[in-house]
Amino acid sequence: MNDTFSASKDPKNDKKPVRIELYDTSLRDGAQSEGVSFSLNDKLAVTYRLDDLGIDYIEGGYPASNEKDKAYFERVSEKKPSLASVCAFGMTRRKGVKPEDDLGLAALVESNAEVVTVVGKSSAFQAKNVLGVSLEENLAMIDDTLRFVARTGKRVFYDAEHFFDGWKDDPEYSLETLRAAVRAGAEAITLCDTNGGSMPNEIAAGVSAALEAAQKVSPDRKVIIGIHTHNDCGLAVANTLAAVEAGATLVQGTINGLGERCGNADLLVVAANLSLKFNGKYETLKPGALERLTQFSRFMYELTNIHPNVAQPYVGASAFAHKGGMHVNGINKDSKSYEHVSPALVGNERRVLVSELSGKSNIVAFLKKYQLEEEAPNPETVAKILEKVTHKESLGYQYEAADGSFKLLVRKVKGEFIPSFKRLNFQTSVIVNDVNESLTTKATVATVKLRVGRRGELRHEVAEGDGPVDALNNALRKAVEPIYPELRDMKLVDYKVRVLNSDAGTAATTRVIIESKDGEEHWSTIGVSENVVEASWIALCDSIEYKLAKSIDYKDKANR
Amino acid sequence: MNDTFSASKDPKNDKKPVRIELYDTSLRDGAQSEGVSFSLNDKLAVTYRLDDLGIDYIEGGYPASNEKDKAYFERVSEKKPSLASVCAFGMTRRKGVKPEDDLGLAALVESNAEVVTVVGKSSAFQAKNVLGVSLEENLAMIDDTLRFVARTGKRVFYDAEHFFDGWKDDPEYSLETLRAAVRAGAEAITLCDTNGGSMPNEIAAGVSAALEAAQKVSPDRKVIIGIHTHNDCGLAVANTLAAVEAGATLVQGTINGLGERCGNADLLVVAANLSLKFNGKYETLKPGALERLTQFSRFMYELTNIHPNVAQPYVGASAFAHKGGMHVNGINKDSKSYEHVSPALVGNERRVLVSELSGKSNIVAFLKKYQLEEEAPNPETVAKILEKVTHKESLGYQYEAADGSFKLLVRKVKGEFIPSFKRLNFQTSVIVNDVNESLTTKATVATVKLRVGRRGELRHEVAEGDGPVDALNNALRKAVEPIYPELRDMKLVDYKVRVLNSDAGTAATTRVIIESKDGEEHWSTIGVSENVVEASWIALCDSIEYKLAKSIDYKDKANR
Repeated sequence: MNDTFSASKDPKNDKKPVRIELYDTSLRDGAQSEGVSFSLNDKLAVTYRLDDLGIDYIEGGYPASNEKDKAYFERVSEKKPSLASVCAFGMTRRKGVKPEDDLGLAALVESNAEVVTVVGKSSAFQAKNVLGVSLEENLAMIDDTLRFVARTGKRVFYDAEHFFDGWKDDPEYSLETLRAAVRAGAEAITLCDTNGGSMPNEIAAGVSAALEAAQKVSPDRKVIIGIHTHNDCGLAVANTLAAVEAGATLVQGTINGLGERCGNADLLVVAANLSLKFNGKYETLKPGALERLTQFSRFMYELTNIHPNVAQPYVGASAFAHKGGMHVNGINKDSKSYEHVSPALVGNERRVLVSELSGKSNIVAFLKKYQLEEEAPNPETVAKILEKVTHKESLGYQYEAADGSFKLLVRKVKGEFIPSFKRLNFQTSVIVNDVNESLTTKATVATVKLRVGRRGELRHEVAEGDGPVDALNNALRKAVEPIYPELRDMKLVDYKVRVLNSDAGTAATTRVIIESKDGEEHWSTIGVSENVVEASWIALCDSIEYKLAKSIDYKDKANR
Repeated sequence: MNDTFSASKDPKNDKKPVRIELYDTSLRDGAQSEGVSFSLNDKLAVTYRLDDLGIDYIEGGYPASNEKDKAYFERVSEKKPSLASVCAFGMTRRKGVKPEDDLGLAALVESNAEVVTVVGKSSAFQAKNVLGVSLEENLAMIDDTLRFVARTGKRVFYDAEHFFDGWKDDPEYSLETLRAAVRAGAEAITLCDTNGGSMPNEIAAGVSAALEAAQKVSPDRKVIIGIHTHNDCGLAVANTLAAVEAGATLVQGTINGLGERCGNADLLVVAANLSLKFNGKYETLKPGALERLTQFSRFMYELTNIHPNVAQPYVGASAFAHKGGMHVNGINKDSKSYEHVSPALVGNERRVLVSELSGKSNIVAFLKKYQLEEEAPNPETVAKILEKVTHKESLGYQYEAADGSFKLLVRKVKGEFIPSFKRLNFQTSVIVNDVNESLTTKATVATVKLRVGRRGELRHEVAEGDGPVDALNNALRKAVEPIYPELRDMKLVDYKVRVLNSDAGTAATTRVIIESKDGEEHWSTIGVSENVVEASWIALCDSIEYKLAKSIDYKDKANR
């Protein structure tokens, strides 16, 4: 078995590792993702973080296509990345135009980028039917565009668009486009599975054919073969690895697999696989960078405002989350039993989930993680907690996503819970008057009646809000804050509603999850009821109780 | 090039296709996904839909683990799927216990399932270190458990847990566990990459070794070799295909790739690849099922309330979405230029993002789809509808999932809408008194004030309900039904709430979608507001207006 619990090389493998260079195109091909748009500052921030990981090439954009990309190359030339080479992307010259008269090419060569990547058609079908040029003209476009760029002293890479589809259809012509690029001075040829429709064996065969063709044309100068895949068949990572195994040494991809349609190969997953799964055969990134992959992935989700893929290999929030009782039991005995690598290697962490599928092992693991038990937990307590969790889950509660409510539940079971306030009554009211078709006047009001603090002071407060839950939150704060001013540090950051048995129409059960934070931490609380307002009320009260329990602990410790 | 634009067989390939059987474990392994929990009704609904697609085996659950799974097998035996075989999942007997004394096994054989799938340890490391038994005892546990189940007349499948990791470490022992299972009567042996850490070449080699071992032990009876992969390296689909190419004919997976950690192989993507990418070499699903994959995927996202992966291969909302200008231009010339298969083959559709032109074609496509225009739509009407849709979508509306509201919008734009009632005012009130820790008394009341019907009769009604929306629905019915008795045919069947900008906490915008039906059809309506009650009110009113518009049309036609 590979010892993938440490990133060290297999001692049996004493060959020098092959350096696989990574070429990030998040800022160009990744920007084609639905809903993604990078500002100039975003692009710069991503650039320096990519450089910091040891990504070899950063494709910053398409200077001919817009002002923002043009400005990017100016800014990045003022503060160059420490290791990475910045690449500008563009197309072969237009048909019937000399390279020196092509405005797009002018923008490319004026771009200050160290590398210019020129994309051309490496498929006879595409050249004829989409570009609408003769096969000879297409070869000439590749040839004189690359020569023109090379003459300016820039390094030239060629992206062979639709190479694999073209090669399956008319292999000789597709290889001829590569030969033209090599003869014209391309330092690297990247083979593109533009439509993402190829199978791994087709990719491997195409890479081998391309390598052979390139070597024949250029016996003295080694031409780098690169790979660019898309995930339309769910095979972007597999196709990238197949290409590397067939001899490609340059990998294009994007962070988190951003990209048009189903996205590009996820460079984070490729880097982790190459580093951890081939017995030290390959080398990528800077030393120590692997442990920052998870952090970097989350940074990109924040920046692009894309809903994170929790199941993302290696770096997803669920990638090392264990729910089944058998799995948790196994993990407690030996982490290798249900983890293919140690989460720490990629900067991720193990999580144990609590649910109806969990057994006592999950509860124990949870108690340890949250440091709710310093020593071995009392088996009777564990059994009581499990009973309570099972009962609550039968009502629709779910503690996986509600750590705050789970911790309160544990305190209650152990008899350690001191409520900060006692709920007596709440009331919400929504009044909407239709003035006309598009104008309404509204009043949303909530009242809460509580006994607050150790002395049980009676507080009856009223507040307005955007909706009944917002109004309730405002009234609750108004009632509790005067006695517990530390509540002012606390903020609600997320509110989720899920209808459970939705086929019961408007009488369905509703589950509300509220995420809160203060300066120190985030926590989530849950409420379930057939009434969405009551479910929200339960989650709101738990959220505030959780916050106040923290400060009570703190005061207790301070008083010891 | 494969002609993957039609699902037809390659005429050059005249071999009989190999049937690859699909084994769905969404309801068992998929239920281990973070945040996923199926109710009994969910499980039954998924079962019949899987059967309808032509999935061969449906693993319904783990009858020994909980009451819900036990009840599932009772219910499903009362109404059997038409084609699929239902499988119950369980473990080998506990150590030192006879199979007939093992409670888990008793639950399995009493489960009414046609197939029993027994998971056992096929790794020496796991048997010794996690299960804590000798290697001999582990073999005996496999042997006598399978024999015990087979004696009851049930079909027996063996899931070889950790087979690939075990085989890399101690190949002979792992193969011996398979031989034990074959000798004990297993009809199928499924090789599991339980931790998801294997590479495709390792999977192919493991499958070949297993096939050879199984055939030697059972020269006369063909043992089916299955494959079960996880996506921890982003290779679940690739590993499944590698296993099939090496001779596996049974594929385990889940819908949308649900499952523990990074999930299982996505059965939808595997089925599409096997059907469309191998020149007719393989056969899966029922004829015509492929075109329902997208619909089925979305059904599962709704049911599990998981944020859909828009970049999901084949079935994701972005899988055939084109953003780049070059791509849109190419697609307009020939759809093959940037699509690896035709979206219609999997029931998905092409989308062109952003440009105003694409917006108009969307509207035209919508009008055609809903048969709102029999002839070519008037360009002025289309432009007006587009303007209205664009405005509403900027507020958070989304008409893809709200056909009822879209049709009303079109009527309004065309001046053909006659309102059945005029809204004047509504009011909801929720009062909750906490009697003690676990008991509350509640009153949820709504009033509505409307002018109903052509004569504008004033109706002011009050009703109670489970929650504010239920109460509103009841009051609205009470006001409108006396004048429009046809409303009694209509029922609300689904109610969904989605919080849009959830980072605004309880002041977030809320989108409500209500699905309704009568004897003839289902329709969906939408409401958006920062106030969940108002959003529900808008969707409720649209739902009733849609129903009444239908009967007005009917009366109009009858009077002609």
